[in-house]
Amino acid sequence: MELSRLGEFGLIERIRRKIPAGRGVRIGIGDDAAWITNQNSSLVTADLLIEGIHFDLRWTSLFDLGHKALAVNLSDIAAMGGLPAYVILSLGLPAGLDSAQIDAFYRGLQALASRTGVALIGGDTNAALTLIVSVCVIGHAPYTPVRRSGARVGDDIYVSGTVGDAALGLKFLQSGGRAQSKKRAVAKLLARHHRPEPRLALGLLLAKTRLATAMIDVSDGLLQDLEHICDASGVGGTILEQQLPLSAAYRAVVETGETAAALTGGEDYELLFCGRREHRTRIEKLSEHAGVSVKRIGVCAERAKGITVVDKSGQTMPFRILGHDHFANKNFRAIKPSSRNVLKTKFSTS
Amino acid sequence: MELSRLGEFGLIERIRRKIPAGRGVRIGIGDDAAWITNQNSSLVTADLLIEGIHFDLRWTSLFDLGHKALAVNLSDIAAMGGLPAYVILSLGLPAGLDSAQIDAFYRGLQALASRTGVALIGGDTNAALTLIVSVCVIGHAPYTPVRRSGARVGDDIYVSGTVGDAALGLKFLQSGGRAQSKKRAVAKLLARHHRPEPRLALGLLLAKTRLATAMIDVSDGLLQDLEHICDASGVGGTILEQQLPLSAAYRAVVETGETAAALTGGEDYELLFCGRREHRTRIEKLSEHAGVSVKRIGVCAERAKGITVVDKSGQTMPFRILGHDHFANKNFRAIKPSSRNVLKTKFSTS
Repeated sequence: MELSRLGEFGLIERIRRKIPAGRGVRIGIGDDAAWITNQNSSLVTADLLIEGIHFDLRWTSLFDLGHKALAVNLSDIAAMGGLPAYVILSLGLPAGLDSAQIDAFYRGLQALASRTGVALIGGDTNAALTLIVSVCVIGHAPYTPVRRSGARVGDDIYVSGTVGDAALGLKFLQSGGRAQSKKRAVAKLLARHHRPEPRLALGLLLAKTRLATAMIDVSDGLLQDLEHICDASGVGGTILEQQLPLSAAYRAVVETGETAAALTGGEDYELLFCGRREHRTRIEKLSEHAGVSVKRIGVCAERAKGITVVDKSGQTMPFRILGHDHFANKNFRAIKPSSRNVLKTKFSTS
Repeated sequence: MELSRLGEFGLIERIRRKIPAGRGVRIGIGDDAAWITNQNSSLVTADLLIEGIHFDLRWTSLFDLGHKALAVNLSDIAAMGGLPAYVILSLGLPAGLDSAQIDAFYRGLQALASRTGVALIGGDTNAALTLIVSVCVIGHAPYTPVRRSGARVGDDIYVSGTVGDAALGLKFLQSGGRAQSKKRAVAKLLARHHRPEPRLALGLLLAKTRLATAMIDVSDGLLQDLEHICDASGVGGTILEQQLPLSAAYRAVVETGETAAALTGGEDYELLFCGRREHRTRIEKLSEHAGVSVKRIGVCAERAKGITVVDKSGQTMPFRILGHDHFANKNFRAIKPSSRNVLKTKFSTS
């Protein structure tokens, strides 16, 4: 079967089925990070960033790339409720790059690493035709990691921060990148695209308190990532469009208030999680403690109802038929310009 | 500075100097694997293999590539005297690849993983223009890992198995790959190139018994890797050309008995290690126990003497001036067709 037909998640599922369970592997393929407890309790995650697929050096600085390569992995550790500890970095370097650029990359990575208590412990350097950045992060799991599979019908659905900003930032860059007006708003959207902030404190607190029944980070887009939770938990989900946390920059740039970027835009690296109805107050307090806003955006529904979005007028829009079919509604075609998807998908918010 | 001037080892050193020491990091950048003892004792290593740089799908099957991608990492764990446990695999997949090929890759990887007790626990899949394979292996360190830095003047230098075979196999493929004669010998050389065997039992026993004072795996070439030991240990080294373990296949194909491929050919993934003179008998016995032949090929000398090769007639040839100069002797230009070197070097055995 061709890759384009199999798709990313089909491929991952195919691999997962063929791989035997290993000693001490509590969580293997299929969550944000692996959890191993052979001699201790470790979380392991990896991300591969390829020039021309995941980033474009015409508008991404090497410093930002260093930050982002680490940040996307830390976000996976955050989504398990873990503490990152070590990073292993393998680089494929094109001949045109000079050492000042590589230094900038390491400075960007190291600035975030220092701030989050992560040590670079090794890796590999290679010649390559285009820049390749492969990062593996090992973390600790001081509490039981939060999986994708614990959501139950009736659980609330939450998301941290604001969503859609990173996708709008990327869209701006892809459209030529000249801001005639709304420069401050555009700058904020670009910052979200270039320097995502992993929600480590929030993830850790949610694991510690066991208040999150399921959790994932928003890398592929809110609806797409919600679907991962729904698939793993055996539930459906209803998102209230009006509840989506949109930043002031988002509202300034998308004057119609259209939420496509918020619903399907990737790379926000916010935490999307579920919580019991009776824990609403505790979750609000925990959000304050973590210093990150958290918004209740929907509720887990019966599996058969699938994933739906209720718009401002109360109308229900189906996201897609659950399972592994293609997107049922073109309006919700996922934006994954820089995501790790085998399928090429287009930006379609406007 | 341009990468080609800085070179791979210059680059690694540059990175190493800028990276602060992390909590629990006993060995960071600069050895075969990192050693972390924050909560337990783990070894971590990574290798990035890029199509067109490290392998050529015209003559490498996906099954063999799966084997090799894991094997080269296990070899790094072996060179520390560790036990591999987990593998994290990130793939960049070109659109032309089909799922049967990807299955073959995983079968090759999994066959070796099963045999060595390694569990695949996660990774990342991506679209890419050429095939990219990024592997990270986490292992345990049941004994104190063997570093590169413990060799002392007077220590014997040993290498396991035979050397130069993998480079000859690659040379055959690069020259067109038609064997008119000596087909069995060529098949053996090709097998060494395609399916390297990590020397895990030997490495583990050498760590357990503390008989190896320094150890590395032969990935870049025997002299090049010896230089890493010499640099880390502050010694020189004398290799006796006549003592080099050449396979029957090597001798059949290189009728002149020329040893350039053995001295500089990469990717044998044998263990190169040093041991005290008084431990010769114990090391011989240990080799029997591990089921791998081990050959004494030289002795550690004063640092100022550098690395030299004594040929059959007793003449001494300098390998290179120690430090970070370029190769002093063109006869010993390294063969690194599939190694992780930023510098492009040529095969020059004939």
